[in-house]
Amino acid sequence: MSQLLQDVVGELSKLPGVGRRTALRLAIHILRMEPESVGDMTRSIDRFRNDVKYCSVCNNLSDESVCPICSDGERDHATICVVEQVADVLSIENTRQYRGLYHVLGGVISPMQGISPSDLKIDLLVDRIARGGVKEVILAISTSVEGETTLFYLMNRLRQFEGLKTTTIARGIGFGDELEYVDELTITHALRNRREIE
Amino acid sequence: MSQLLQDVVGELSKLPGVGRRTALRLAIHILRMEPESVGDMTRSIDRFRNDVKYCSVCNNLSDESVCPICSDGERDHATICVVEQVADVLSIENTRQYRGLYHVLGGVISPMQGISPSDLKIDLLVDRIARGGVKEVILAISTSVEGETTLFYLMNRLRQFEGLKTTTIARGIGFGDELEYVDELTITHALRNRREIE
Repeated sequence: MSQLLQDVVGELSKLPGVGRRTALRLAIHILRMEPESVGDMTRSIDRFRNDVKYCSVCNNLSDESVCPICSDGERDHATICVVEQVADVLSIENTRQYRGLYHVLGGVISPMQGISPSDLKIDLLVDRIARGGVKEVILAISTSVEGETTLFYLMNRLRQFEGLKTTTIARGIGFGDELEYVDELTITHALRNRREIE
Repeated sequence: MSQLLQDVVGELSKLPGVGRRTALRLAIHILRMEPESVGDMTRSIDRFRNDVKYCSVCNNLSDESVCPICSDGERDHATICVVEQVADVLSIENTRQYRGLYHVLGGVISPMQGISPSDLKIDLLVDRIARGGVKEVILAISTSVEGETTLFYLMNRLRQFEGLKTTTIARGIGFGDELEYVDELTITHALRNRREIE
């Protein structure tokens, strides 16, 4: 078997969710691509890995030391939405409904996985709020056990700031979800937080 | 959003089975990899795309102009197994049961997709057999409509070689398959080709 093929299959198999069979399929596909397209792809991967930075303000991925969102004067700098990871920023940005800033924790507190508060960008958040100007912190953390632990810890840390509004995103039945398949905790929460039709 | 991240997500999304969400997940994973590992991966992709060749004898992927299988004197050069694609060679090689040579057609005849016999390496196979020394050609082609068309076409082309044995791989119930879920054509075929227990 071709050593070059073996090498590329071995390397691609290291990616998450890519077994040897998928790696082989990807390799065969790469072979059918124009050499320039393949070069564009590998260059973009190398550049991304070597040049991307973390925003010194919000810890989001950034090409500069401060990301475009934090340096955007048009956005609402008095509101910070705290999320677990970079992908969450993209999900919220895709809605085009949120105009405030973000803070990327880089995970959730998980004693099982050895992730303590000091492994997350929580001090950076507290320092950021201490500099003043922030009116509301939205905690958009997942509802897992680790997420709830993180939420509780954050609320405690933020209690020191008098007048700071702390909110969490609404939990409820998603659009398109069928009630039949929604878990009981979500239904209970959705019932308790029912709204009058206007 | 980071331009570097956008670029890498856009490039990775071009791969088959990789949507924007998966591309983002891959990008985040790449970020956690060591820069050297990422470099190894992208280099192996570039090298594979630029340097891999097709064996001039059997059309399998190869690092040299003749692949290691065709140039292996230990293998049975009188038997050629004809397959559709490179992945099929690997599947058969993985069994470690076959000691003959291969011939990779590069697809099947498909008028719908505009693939005619001249787009496949059929002439190369006929010329190869015409040079003599081949006793058996095993046609390991899939049982799709296109596969059967290709099989029929190949049998016609090979008829000119007197004394050449032409075989197809056995069709039947796979090991571990439950009869309940096997299609009727396969069951019919498996029944007709039943074997006496020795």
